[in-house]
Amino acid sequence: MLYDFSFYLRNRTPSMSKGLPKRSENYSEWYNEVVKRAGLAENSAVRGCMVIKPYGFAIWEKMQRTLDDMFKATGHQNAYFPLFVPKSFLEKEEEHAEGFAKECAVVTHYRLKADPDGKGLIVDPEAKLEEELIVRPTSETVIWNTYRNWIQSWRDLPLLINQWANVVRWEMRTRLFLRTAEFLWQEGHTAHATEQEAVEETERMLGVYADFAENWMAMPVVQGVKSPNERFAGAIETYCIEALMQDGKALQAGTSHFLGQNFARVFDVKFVNKENQLEYAWATSWGVSTRLMGALVMAHSDDKGLVLPPKLAPIQVVIVPIHKTEEDLATISEKANAIADELRAAGISVKFDDDDKQRSGWKFAEYELKGVPVRLAMGMRDVENGTVEIARRDTLTKETVSLDTAVTTIRTLLEQMQQSIYQRALQFREENTHLVDDWEQFKLKIEEGGFLLAHWDGTAETEEKIKEETKATIRCIPLNSVEEAGKCVYSGRESAKRVVFARAY
Amino acid sequence: MLYDFSFYLRNRTPSMSKGLPKRSENYSEWYNEVVKRAGLAENSAVRGCMVIKPYGFAIWEKMQRTLDDMFKATGHQNAYFPLFVPKSFLEKEEEHAEGFAKECAVVTHYRLKADPDGKGLIVDPEAKLEEELIVRPTSETVIWNTYRNWIQSWRDLPLLINQWANVVRWEMRTRLFLRTAEFLWQEGHTAHATEQEAVEETERMLGVYADFAENWMAMPVVQGVKSPNERFAGAIETYCIEALMQDGKALQAGTSHFLGQNFARVFDVKFVNKENQLEYAWATSWGVSTRLMGALVMAHSDDKGLVLPPKLAPIQVVIVPIHKTEEDLATISEKANAIADELRAAGISVKFDDDDKQRSGWKFAEYELKGVPVRLAMGMRDVENGTVEIARRDTLTKETVSLDTAVTTIRTLLEQMQQSIYQRALQFREENTHLVDDWEQFKLKIEEGGFLLAHWDGTAETEEKIKEETKATIRCIPLNSVEEAGKCVYSGRESAKRVVFARAY
Repeated sequence: MLYDFSFYLRNRTPSMSKGLPKRSENYSEWYNEVVKRAGLAENSAVRGCMVIKPYGFAIWEKMQRTLDDMFKATGHQNAYFPLFVPKSFLEKEEEHAEGFAKECAVVTHYRLKADPDGKGLIVDPEAKLEEELIVRPTSETVIWNTYRNWIQSWRDLPLLINQWANVVRWEMRTRLFLRTAEFLWQEGHTAHATEQEAVEETERMLGVYADFAENWMAMPVVQGVKSPNERFAGAIETYCIEALMQDGKALQAGTSHFLGQNFARVFDVKFVNKENQLEYAWATSWGVSTRLMGALVMAHSDDKGLVLPPKLAPIQVVIVPIHKTEEDLATISEKANAIADELRAAGISVKFDDDDKQRSGWKFAEYELKGVPVRLAMGMRDVENGTVEIARRDTLTKETVSLDTAVTTIRTLLEQMQQSIYQRALQFREENTHLVDDWEQFKLKIEEGGFLLAHWDGTAETEEKIKEETKATIRCIPLNSVEEAGKCVYSGRESAKRVVFARAY
Repeated sequence: MLYDFSFYLRNRTPSMSKGLPKRSENYSEWYNEVVKRAGLAENSAVRGCMVIKPYGFAIWEKMQRTLDDMFKATGHQNAYFPLFVPKSFLEKEEEHAEGFAKECAVVTHYRLKADPDGKGLIVDPEAKLEEELIVRPTSETVIWNTYRNWIQSWRDLPLLINQWANVVRWEMRTRLFLRTAEFLWQEGHTAHATEQEAVEETERMLGVYADFAENWMAMPVVQGVKSPNERFAGAIETYCIEALMQDGKALQAGTSHFLGQNFARVFDVKFVNKENQLEYAWATSWGVSTRLMGALVMAHSDDKGLVLPPKLAPIQVVIVPIHKTEEDLATISEKANAIADELRAAGISVKFDDDDKQRSGWKFAEYELKGVPVRLAMGMRDVENGTVEIARRDTLTKETVSLDTAVTTIRTLLEQMQQSIYQRALQFREENTHLVDDWEQFKLKIEEGGFLLAHWDGTAETEEKIKEETKATIRCIPLNSVEEAGKCVYSGRESAKRVVFARAY
């Protein structure tokens, strides 16, 4: 199906009114401006809630489609559970309640009425709910309350369910995509007959997330488990993938939780096991969110705007005609449309931008801002010579190739770019990952940003102290870390392996 | 990609513990039981909110995917707007406010805290919002407030945006899919430079809905406009598609609204037109919801359970082996898997149910309940003869065919069934649509159900009276109705055309 991309090009003038801030000068401001000007998202009139704009949503849709296929390929089914969580449900699991109570949107009434003292509407005091409803910050409670009726026997297990949904956490300091009061996500909630199966599921889904981050987002991640301090409220173990952003800060890109029997116990989800005994079911939950959009921007983009890995780019190739007369445009269009058709036949999404209201130089800058991976420029000389100019967004390099081989070249180029963007991010991470064994060095290095691999004595106390003194947190205890006797970088006590420290989003 | 459908078959025992109620005896109870037992949805612990179960959600996903493609093919882009509507936004458009104020979920606080007087959590009185937030019942206000910054010039128009979202309307009497406090839907919100373009868009999207209802859901619909009484709150004109259910009641299956400049005016969305003058933008909005799931069930299903049009069936073909020994099963499986592969290669979704814990008779009933369009049964005699038994769900007829031609037969059969299910519904509607010119006859006929085509004098007063006396409402003034001078069936006053009356969901 051919989609019309013209919307993405609207509101052109404001975005180009001045250059982007530079990453080196103000990374945070650069991020905000890229997100807004590239048409990904903007703040809404509702505090902390964002509007995801069409171009941003098109990228999110590609992420969703890919992840959804991966979930289904691993045996999961989608379902949908209510937006509201009764307050009494949230109270049931103590740690969970403590973790989410402080940032809840609470529904207390179900009706407005005309203000008797003036214009407008007021909350109708007679329409007060008997029990308050919380707008879901996550759905373990509602879902496990439902699972009670779905699970009777080991034959009903495993129960492998996912939902795509919006959730609300009343964050006080928000940032587009990275931390918003409302965000979109998926949450997997599975139930298993044995502890081992649940742990395997937790790890399997972490693997799916890592696969997606690395092979689709072109973003290398460290897989690991959280320290007890950083665990999801109610989890026995939280697995995570951690990525390094260009400013040297870490970003948690996805989590997968082994929940043990905590939720089964409080919601009384028991099943008859193979030995004919009643047992509580074992749980996992796992999620990624629109936060990945922020990670994507911060991992790859540059001072000219977005850099998108081809696999997630809504427009993979744009063709810009370079012409003086309408006659020339007609001649160029014929060739351009032919190549566009060929590219589409090869499964590549293409936009031919023959909009006459903007100059080609302006278009070049606009598509760079929007991160379109490949730009083709075609002028009358190209038509005469049977050539086209190919520019790649990641390296900003150009070459002129014969039209005959252009499609093959572009196809190969898109694959190369996907790899190359990943390799660049990987190299950046490697250059910014340091073994640190000395506390003074730790304090120095953390200022430079990056991942610090250091020994830790395993206590929450030390973890807290390090955070207080340096703002660094334990991002994870890597799954692939080797046993290596050492001394805690802070306390000097014994340690058996290194963990990853960083300042984080 | 091969999906595992095994989940859909869990919880088998409860669903089969007794037969379904009969439509003729208790239609309403029959509907609820089909929805629950076929695994489409169930009530949640949250008043009026449903859980959409995996099998139901798989059907909804097919609907979504199809509609989404249709929206994109007509030039629309998806985006996402906040869940919350500030109270002051809702107040702005007076009719709109009046229409939705009475059924709002109102967020008044953003934090819970530990109850100082006991266990559990209470709403923190110090965390009261300055302005209450309404959980969106629809998003015109939030979206038009955003459009103010997106629209400056006629070059920014048309703006063609859709969002897939959850919405909340605090209905007092709820019913799975048909009327729930929370439901899933899509809402298109477009802005145009001229009245004519906006009206064309409104009609275009009604056409898309009618196309989807008839060619995918196999459900014939009448396209028309609502009487002023039944318009969307804030609309100038509401177009709708109306379908007839098997119990003779009408169901509004989708609406498309021409909103004029109402929302542009209250949210100050002006643009410079081609004549260089400032003008308010013209608006449309249009939506369909999970209510379509209810329509799908009530349009086609029978006393044995769901009947699904093949295009929307998550499993189109199920293969059930009939065997006595494990050896026989192995022999049958080889043939069954071969035909399953062939069917999949032809783009047909297939489940081979070799589960050994249930007998084949049980499986037959279960797949009938779940509405799988085609069932193949294969026993040892079939293996010997090179045949397979094909049963179709809609007519419950069977035939035995040669394995060589089975794939072609099934492919043709699925297409025929799609047509045939539509034709059956169309015939039902035709048999239950009556021209009525006499008030006594009207009162008699309305008891039998169906669409009554009658003259109406065009006044809200008459419409109200008819509703009071018969519970029938004007479903729509059909777009294709011919001018025909007549007398109002109730008042006897002059009328220029017939409208459709019915009792409705």
